[in-house]
Amino acid sequence: MTRQELFEQILRKQSFLCVGLDPELSKLPQHLLQCNNPVLEFCKAIIDATHHYCIAYKPNLAFFEALGPDGLRTLTQVLAHVPPGIFTIADAKRGDIGNTSRLYAQAYFECFGFDAITVAPYMGEDSVKPFLTFPGKWAVLLALTSNAGSRNFQFTPQEDGLPLYEKVIKQSQQWGGHANALMYVAGATHPEELARIRELAPQHFLLVPGVGTQGGDLAAVCHYGMNEQCGLLVNASRAILYADQGVHFAQAAGQAARYLQRQMQAILKERGLG
Amino acid sequence: MTRQELFEQILRKQSFLCVGLDPELSKLPQHLLQCNNPVLEFCKAIIDATHHYCIAYKPNLAFFEALGPDGLRTLTQVLAHVPPGIFTIADAKRGDIGNTSRLYAQAYFECFGFDAITVAPYMGEDSVKPFLTFPGKWAVLLALTSNAGSRNFQFTPQEDGLPLYEKVIKQSQQWGGHANALMYVAGATHPEELARIRELAPQHFLLVPGVGTQGGDLAAVCHYGMNEQCGLLVNASRAILYADQGVHFAQAAGQAARYLQRQMQAILKERGLG
Repeated sequence: MTRQELFEQILRKQSFLCVGLDPELSKLPQHLLQCNNPVLEFCKAIIDATHHYCIAYKPNLAFFEALGPDGLRTLTQVLAHVPPGIFTIADAKRGDIGNTSRLYAQAYFECFGFDAITVAPYMGEDSVKPFLTFPGKWAVLLALTSNAGSRNFQFTPQEDGLPLYEKVIKQSQQWGGHANALMYVAGATHPEELARIRELAPQHFLLVPGVGTQGGDLAAVCHYGMNEQCGLLVNASRAILYADQGVHFAQAAGQAARYLQRQMQAILKERGLG
Repeated sequence: MTRQELFEQILRKQSFLCVGLDPELSKLPQHLLQCNNPVLEFCKAIIDATHHYCIAYKPNLAFFEALGPDGLRTLTQVLAHVPPGIFTIADAKRGDIGNTSRLYAQAYFECFGFDAITVAPYMGEDSVKPFLTFPGKWAVLLALTSNAGSRNFQFTPQEDGLPLYEKVIKQSQQWGGHANALMYVAGATHPEELARIRELAPQHFLLVPGVGTQGGDLAAVCHYGMNEQCGLLVNASRAILYADQGVHFAQAAGQAARYLQRQMQAILKERGLG
């Protein structure tokens, strides 16, 4: 999916919501545990209930690998249930030496058919570049993550006084990381830094986790991070998936997604994108 | 496997060789492509030919994920073929927010039964800690990798003048990363930095990739990196797997592994560990 097509989806649905699919067995509604494949049934019901309100789904690979050898098969079945036109992100945080990153890119873009994959920057240029060479596909590079551990290395001033996450954003743009192939992860828990990230990458889409359970604020994220093509994919996972953990989980998830979509619609309108 | 048990394996086999299992379909011997599962047959033959000469196997997850939904099943079949007593490392370079890293740890330690998993440090403390809490299991944290891209961020001086990889080594030891739960990746392509890493982590095992195809030198690695319990797992992948790409690939792989084991035996003897 191109950047223009993504923008058109945002305008059409009046939403920039990404639903994170993190199906943890211990958190699934009890009644689903009798199914043959509870995770698949859960994800399908979540997709059915939310797809009108979101423009992207982001399955986190950990939750599928935790299912063992059949986990990736379940993942393909979940993906097959995503309606056409919705952007799909493999939240995999991969990255390895060049020849190995190329294999990861082939796996997620070609074999599983994702539109995007999250990528970790620690191993540098040759670990990131292979993800940038598939037309219409996207690398989503970790820049400033939403978790507490983001304070350990990402904020550390480098020799030029700038924090590591800024260096990641600057350097990656020199590796062919233009705004049609690369996005950045920028956590909602650091809203003021979003302004700086937007300055360094005015055109790039930002994938923003951390709204909801992790405490990030949607209005602040949009205030600091939105650009003229929206430029944001705001992710919510647990706040939607586990809005209710009983028999009405899907209905509650739909309501939670709709609630976020309505807030997004109001913000888009305010920005002249309504 | 405990550190003491690992050391005993090294003494017994007179080897600290780790064989990286990176089975790329395009590089497999032609005659295997007729098999029902060429990657499985290839890995089994490589294990049969090399297990006397190595103490560890390190399947890289990219090469199994590239097989699609059945890739993880093939991985479990490969693991089932590893003889008892051999250390197994999931080269997965995982790392995510705390609750998600916990799932990755459960997946690789409990579900797939690996002894160790490689972990990326960019997301900091809560992304690494969950891997350190499984008795007898190991996180192998990326510190200084063997690839060209290691120059982009890992060597960058921090505000105190020390490079990022040193900060990773220092901080991770404060997160419960003692020498019985944590190892570091330290590339053979940076032999002189191994001395500094050994200074910062005198007791920790180092997983050293980059000998062979990537150009690292075994003698230099041992000169700078060895400690009184050896403290090294030196990995070779392509130099063993693809020593010969014809019908005699397994025999050639065995010879390549044996050649490295003999060199290691001589070094251990020199160090009084023979």
